[in-house]
Amino acid sequence: MVIVMKKGSSREDLARVVRAVEELGFHPHVLPGIERTAVGITGNPGPLDPDAFERLPGVARAIPVSQPFKLASREMTPADTVVRVGSKAIGGGGLFVIAGPCAVETADQLLESARLMKNAGADALRGGAFKPRSSPYSFQGLGKEGLVLLAKAREATGLPIVTEAVDEASLELVDEFADVVQVGARNMQNYELLKRVGRLKKPVLLKRGMSATLEDLLLSAEYVLAQGNPDVILCERGIRTFSRHSRYTLDLSVLPAARGLSHLPIIVDPSHAVGRSDRVPSMARAAVAAGADGVMFEVHPAPDKALSDGRQALLPQQGADLIAQLRAIATIVARKVETVR
Amino acid sequence: MVIVMKKGSSREDLARVVRAVEELGFHPHVLPGIERTAVGITGNPGPLDPDAFERLPGVARAIPVSQPFKLASREMTPADTVVRVGSKAIGGGGLFVIAGPCAVETADQLLESARLMKNAGADALRGGAFKPRSSPYSFQGLGKEGLVLLAKAREATGLPIVTEAVDEASLELVDEFADVVQVGARNMQNYELLKRVGRLKKPVLLKRGMSATLEDLLLSAEYVLAQGNPDVILCERGIRTFSRHSRYTLDLSVLPAARGLSHLPIIVDPSHAVGRSDRVPSMARAAVAAGADGVMFEVHPAPDKALSDGRQALLPQQGADLIAQLRAIATIVARKVETVR
Amino acid sequence: MVIVMKKGSSREDLARVVRAVEELGFHPHVLPGIERTAVGITGNPGPLDPDAFERLPGVARAIPVSQPFKLASREMTPADTVVRVGSKAIGGGGLFVIAGPCAVETADQLLESARLMKNAGADALRGGAFKPRSSPYSFQGLGKEGLVLLAKAREATGLPIVTEAVDEASLELVDEFADVVQVGARNMQNYELLKRVGRLKKPVLLKRGMSATLEDLLLSAEYVLAQGNPDVILCERGIRTFSRHSRYTLDLSVLPAARGLSHLPIIVDPSHAVGRSDRVPSMARAAVAAGADGVMFEVHPAPDKALSDGRQALLPQQGADLIAQLRAIATIVARKVETVR
Amino acid sequence: MVIVMKKGSSREDLARVVRAVEELGFHPHVLPGIERTAVGITGNPGPLDPDAFERLPGVARAIPVSQPFKLASREMTPADTVVRVGSKAIGGGGLFVIAGPCAVETADQLLESARLMKNAGADALRGGAFKPRSSPYSFQGLGKEGLVLLAKAREATGLPIVTEAVDEASLELVDEFADVVQVGARNMQNYELLKRVGRLKKPVLLKRGMSATLEDLLLSAEYVLAQGNPDVILCERGIRTFSRHSRYTLDLSVLPAARGLSHLPIIVDPSHAVGRSDRVPSMARAAVAAGADGVMFEVHPAPDKALSDGRQALLPQQGADLIAQLRAIATIVARKVETVR
Repeated sequence: MVIVMKKGSSREDLARVVRAVEELGFHPHVLPGIERTAVGITGNPGPLDPDAFERLPGVARAIPVSQPFKLASREMTPADTVVRVGSKAIGGGGLFVIAGPCAVETADQLLESARLMKNAGADALRGGAFKPRSSPYSFQGLGKEGLVLLAKAREATGLPIVTEAVDEASLELVDEFADVVQVGARNMQNYELLKRVGRLKKPVLLKRGMSATLEDLLLSAEYVLAQGNPDVILCERGIRTFSRHSRYTLDLSVLPAARGLSHLPIIVDPSHAVGRSDRVPSMARAAVAAGADGVMFEVHPAPDKALSDGRQALLPQQGADLIAQLRAIATIVARKVETVR
Repeated sequence: MVIVMKKGSSREDLARVVRAVEELGFHPHVLPGIERTAVGITGNPGPLDPDAFERLPGVARAIPVSQPFKLASREMTPADTVVRVGSKAIGGGGLFVIAGPCAVETADQLLESARLMKNAGADALRGGAFKPRSSPYSFQGLGKEGLVLLAKAREATGLPIVTEAVDEASLELVDEFADVVQVGARNMQNYELLKRVGRLKKPVLLKRGMSATLEDLLLSAEYVLAQGNPDVILCERGIRTFSRHSRYTLDLSVLPAARGLSHLPIIVDPSHAVGRSDRVPSMARAAVAAGADGVMFEVHPAPDKALSDGRQALLPQQGADLIAQLRAIATIVARKVETVR
Repeated sequence: MVIVMKKGSSREDLARVVRAVEELGFHPHVLPGIERTAVGITGNPGPLDPDAFERLPGVARAIPVSQPFKLASREMTPADTVVRVGSKAIGGGGLFVIAGPCAVETADQLLESARLMKNAGADALRGGAFKPRSSPYSFQGLGKEGLVLLAKAREATGLPIVTEAVDEASLELVDEFADVVQVGARNMQNYELLKRVGRLKKPVLLKRGMSATLEDLLLSAEYVLAQGNPDVILCERGIRTFSRHSRYTLDLSVLPAARGLSHLPIIVDPSHAVGRSDRVPSMARAAVAAGADGVMFEVHPAPDKALSDGRQALLPQQGADLIAQLRAIATIVARKVETVR
Repeated sequence: MVIVMKKGSSREDLARVVRAVEELGFHPHVLPGIERTAVGITGNPGPLDPDAFERLPGVARAIPVSQPFKLASREMTPADTVVRVGSKAIGGGGLFVIAGPCAVETADQLLESARLMKNAGADALRGGAFKPRSSPYSFQGLGKEGLVLLAKAREATGLPIVTEAVDEASLELVDEFADVVQVGARNMQNYELLKRVGRLKKPVLLKRGMSATLEDLLLSAEYVLAQGNPDVILCERGIRTFSRHSRYTLDLSVLPAARGLSHLPIIVDPSHAVGRSDRVPSMARAAVAAGADGVMFEVHPAPDKALSDGRQALLPQQGADLIAQLRAIATIVARKVETVR
């Protein structure tokens, strides 16, 4: 923490700050400047609260120097975390592709999607059984029945299953059936849910909230990690901005930033961000070119019959073509990964 | 729904759209324009999904005409909803003031706050027993013990209690003790929680998420209303924008907008928005001047000892002075409320 | 400037930073911490560039301590700037009301607006002769003819004139006719225009750009002040956010923030922010309650005939009623202005 | 235009709307719905102003159906515009790479950058002689001297020159020396400047403002096109959002959206968006993978000596490596460009 005094603050103000630091058991270092004085604090074992100092008279700002997350930080864990999912891995240099319908609807729809995606080279199957929908009048998912269908699709294709939990009850079921538990963007700061997935022995796919900063996202990951679950996969899915040409603004610059601050793998979901199938391929390619550890997108054998978000689903053949492009781009990117500073 | 055809779309494209509308059992009305043709749809009982039409060849856009929420809409319920809390009301022209500490910490802290706020003319006491905090290392609230202290403060002062629930377990406890159940901004789209509070017989204070549009907020209210609970109080508490001079940007223009679209009362929490006590009074006054049905702000007998968000808490005397100002402004506003169009 | 070293950075990294500071002629102060080391810099006469240090190996961050603006800062000029306009003042505790049509259209329209607003107690007349419009096909203003009409309206009513300049040529004309030169939001970072108005002997109304931070705004004011013109009036007019219920989001929390950082007066234009006349009064009242030094809003004798932004113009009687409310609220606010910290 | 009546609006309201449409000489088509009535308008030659109708009693919304831009729209000009620059083209399927320093500083700095970039396969040289800087105390460019140096670098390497104009005076000079005139983000809505570049016979690189919607950008392009200059190149360079991990948020989803709405080529400047050289390559690759017609990035032979934005400049060898990667990705993308709907 560095405390910056106001220009024209008094000697008493400075003495008060010095005392406040000493009372906490830390060491104040007074740095007299031409325009104003600053006080550096050393000896503190972790982050301090700026408020405790900004409240004191004569103080202009208290600037935190440490990061508020620890387990999620690359400083504490320099090496990349690699999360095993089925026989593959997310993180560590490869490209992990998750594809499937937005929501599980019928056995046929799911199985057909799964088989086609398996043949196209996908690494996992997605499909929602519990759907958080903005309108109470929209289709809310098949629930347990959907999970059973997902398990059958896994049996038929060997693809591991990624699916979302939305509360305590659904989490118990999802834990029983899924290979990766997804926490959706709207629940990214549902801390009770995060604590619960932190106690599972299963990878967690944590989607960035639509107004979450990278720090918010890493603090939510910290909730999971702090409960003992090390397998957190971050996921960018678009943020809310003033832009109106896209449902959300896919923030790909978070990829190199996250890689700098954290050791956790990060993937991208372009489908929910752009909300239109014709724009999904360009954003999926961009994600891989920007260095994503994986991509998750939606396919549907008959998008116009989909019960949820059909407009953003690719046809299976489009999905297969896209996977081929993504793998080709991944090869180029892998040849020249710049050192992250 | 109005479907706008692309310039240069073919007769076949138009025929296909007309057929699609008829197959759904609705009536297509072809509107030939100089530049392009549009198709109006009538006969549909509720909102249609634009995707179903935007997927068709030759279609440029499908524009929804109905609103996605019903129970929350002023169109369906023209008269203002008035929510009774204790012996007072939120909505209907008065000004309801909720004050108290961010978190319940000790019996003394709470009781002192409650007494001073009661004397200053507050209508209800706030205080968190379950605190959703971005960092897992921050104080998470006293839990049930905090609710017990709130109940004692109510007994001592007569002030009704407003406090937050964060999941199924805490909701059961909060329902047992509180007069108004708060759903926080981070849980505004926690739909399972919304369904549960919708089944209570108790007013719900629903805070706007930091990236929620007004439509999102009203759809979340719709989740509660659809379960049978009519007593929803909306609350603006600041949104995420690029602005860095304030923790969040308090969006007061939502007040007249919400009043136009919905019959539900709406209050403002300036404390969390600005995050600094010296800016709370100006924003609280602005909220009342803009027509808020109430204001909720934080006071603490010793802000520098607060376990949570002390920086944004007013001293009790500052809180009392503020309430006097707010009531004076409310008188002026009430004299001349413009007709909402 | 405080330089924070990375955890695990080497002695050589630290020595290099120390040398870099010394080579610039400043004093490095090494602050060894448990987790990492920081280096405070003193002896620098003004802001340093963080880049120069963040480029060095082993450096995590370089945190500026000084503000990038000087003449605009309250630190340098503690007392409020009061700008004289006609026989009145903007700043210093009063409330300055500017009203008038969006664009000057005809002699009758302008004169009628001016007379009615004069009678209603307005302090100045607004009206655009040069209109920056997003579409090249929209009405672009009457140009010099509009300025002549404004001068006639001033002659008839005594109201000083506020009008916008958009480039070198229009600025010369505006300087000849107007009492206050307005720089619009879209030109807030048109630095050549700012330098030119900085050389005038006339107050400048500087509107905040729709994506400008408070720091950006004050830096733009600095451009004007640095050329020798001390009479800058800041103006909040709404920012771009994800919110869709309002044309722009009026950011009233900038008022106490600006007052803390700068001595310049600040007013609010609610008309352009909300874009609908029925929402202008509530936002104008909120601005005054939040402590604005003035308000600028649009009136038009026949809004439905307006050539520009008619939808946001109040009828003259609505404008008069609003001014009465605003003056009443100003009285309450003035009684209890909290100390700015 | 489609006018949606309020639920419960009267017959008189409807009749008034019908009359208003007829008075303008257009054709009203009444569409009676179960919940509410709409009125379609046909016969209008161009976009109508929604305000004219939303002001009428009983009207809920007036929804524009036509786009406000014409010359920039793909509807009017279906085929891609290809802009010739030197012996190459921007648009039409290829990848155009512009590289060079942020600002022209010295003959050596510029010439070395130009030679290295030429050898690395760049198509044009960038370099600012007139620099719009947020602070009046920052380096503002060499002016005419910088243009002379750019011309010499062109002579030495054959690379065409891209450089910015900031006002009337600089535009005259830039027109004399440059191959492409750049209009910067802060001047995107400086309409007087746009009109002037519209009268040149030279390609214009138009950067998107940091809070401009795609529609705003295309309307600004329309200003140039409407003056007779058809050679407009759009440029995405990052927008203002709440995200704090990057200087601006690079909005790559604008690429497919712009391609759908407009025939103009669009390139991406990742350097100003991310502001850190280590993140430029990933965003440049992402831009090409998303389908950009070109990329513009900054290189500097000695970034730590740069007078402007050195932190975001690549070393020449990094720039050369990046160009190789970009050309490889362009090959993959070109093989499978999805049809734009």
